[in-house]
Amino acid sequence: MRPSLRFPPQTTPSCKIQNCKTLAYIIGTFIYLIIGATIFDKLESSHEDVRRDHYDKNISLFQRQHNMSRGDFDRLTSIILKNHQYKKKQWQFIGSFYYSTVVLTLIGYGHATPTTSSGKAVTIAYALIGIPMSLIMFQSVGERLNSLITYCLKRLKRRFKKSEYVTDMELLTCEALLSVLTLLTGAYMFYLNEKWSYLSSLYYCLLTLTTIGFGDFVPLQQKNYNEYPYVYIFFTIGFILTGLTILASSSNLLVLKMVETDTNRIKTEQTIAHE
Amino acid sequence: MRPSLRFPPQTTPSCKIQNCKTLAYIIGTFIYLIIGATIFDKLESSHEDVRRDHYDKNISLFQRQHNMSRGDFDRLTSIILKNHQYKKKQWQFIGSFYYSTVVLTLIGYGHATPTTSSGKAVTIAYALIGIPMSLIMFQSVGERLNSLITYCLKRLKRRFKKSEYVTDMELLTCEALLSVLTLLTGAYMFYLNEKWSYLSSLYYCLLTLTTIGFGDFVPLQQKNYNEYPYVYIFFTIGFILTGLTILASSSNLLVLKMVETDTNRIKTEQTIAHE
Ligand SMILES: [K+]
Ligand SMILES: [K+]
Repeated sequence: MRPSLRFPPQTTPSCKIQNCKTLAYIIGTFIYLIIGATIFDKLESSHEDVRRDHYDKNISLFQRQHNMSRGDFDRLTSIILKNHQYKKKQWQFIGSFYYSTVVLTLIGYGHATPTTSSGKAVTIAYALIGIPMSLIMFQSVGERLNSLITYCLKRLKRRFKKSEYVTDMELLTCEALLSVLTLLTGAYMFYLNEKWSYLSSLYYCLLTLTTIGFGDFVPLQQKNYNEYPYVYIFFTIGFILTGLTILASSSNLLVLKMVETDTNRIKTEQTIAHE
Repeated sequence: MRPSLRFPPQTTPSCKIQNCKTLAYIIGTFIYLIIGATIFDKLESSHEDVRRDHYDKNISLFQRQHNMSRGDFDRLTSIILKNHQYKKKQWQFIGSFYYSTVVLTLIGYGHATPTTSSGKAVTIAYALIGIPMSLIMFQSVGERLNSLITYCLKRLKRRFKKSEYVTDMELLTCEALLSVLTLLTGAYMFYLNEKWSYLSSLYYCLLTLTTIGFGDFVPLQQKNYNEYPYVYIFFTIGFILTGLTILASSSNLLVLKMVETDTNRIKTEQTIAHE
């Protein structure tokens, strides 16, 4: 009976409703994408044109000053761009650890990417094995964090002589507060240490914790890793891991909520079937 | 009773087992990160040194040829790097749509990033609202895809006069095959159209479908969007959306499997409690 519950034949009414729902989600997401495209086009396009003009003028000036042909200049551009990543040692142990973290958490800044074929092949294998592992770890730690918060909330409630029962809503609120706290702490620390503007720093933290990870702002990139204090390196990697754990605990709670709803639904259906 | 099932008090044996499990996951993941760091350090470090030397030599040669001081050269480098993104129009409608897709799917190549403050602020808001929406869409479409595959498998089995029942294992196998097919089709198409090596193309596809998205290989970046055939633009965005849908359908199946296990566990526990 269970499989038919999950995958109803193509003609039942519940299946039609599900199809319509899915279609609505698809259309909704596409409309949202189109809205996004329109907004970003408006916001960034004009600025892009201004910067292009500025770029072209600067280049012509430089070519005249240094008596450089267009071909020379293009060669120079390609040297500078191709080799820019080598200005800083990316692959010492700390750098490689940072790289592995960025792969397993799915953030993928792209501040360091493998240049050798073997590096690429190993990255593929490393990711395929490691990603399920790290997802399980984050879910498991997130679940433990939920336990800990529930325990603390219970103690707190007992002290104030209220009911001992902790609702899911209270738990979610706590996690939301923790997320905001992590975000603001992170943003402030990177604002101080990386000399980014506060908006850029907040933008970096949000893009990291959502695991989008554009890589336009990446901490620890202004000098070699061994020139940074260890505390700051720990803070950077710790920020990523802590932030993602808190988000995992929220998602763990939401999945469990779904499980509960599903269980209740099945129970109700079984009760109805028995009557 | 349910909340204590989910968040057992800190002293029960089941809680200790859970803590130990979580600790084991954490240690396992950290060991895996250290192994990764060691391997990538070995693979990439020596190559990095060779490239650095090559870079330094090229630069000196250029400086001598064009009678350029170190200061001049650094200024030129910064102009070229800062403005490299303006060599191609990123923010027309198609580019902005591509950008929105890359944000909502959490891939975040970083091939185009907002340069204005308003662009950054809107990206933050856009992501926070849109990501839950697109996750729900992918899960919903994935669930429908599961239904469709089950339906097709049933028909196929009926034709060959076998049992009509479709197991989860058969469904997962089908999805694994579909994933591999999408991956290889994608890799081959990008190999042809972007002139990447086959390994690079496969590496790109894997990094995209895992949503890591380093951004070292990004399709549609060699000329302006309006110079590409529409079919290829559709294919690129379609590849991302299709691939992620197939992965979502596998994850939907695994979550449902977990729900089922959980339901059975609770049922068993209730039966024992009633006896
Ligand atoms: K990413
Ligand atoms: K990324």
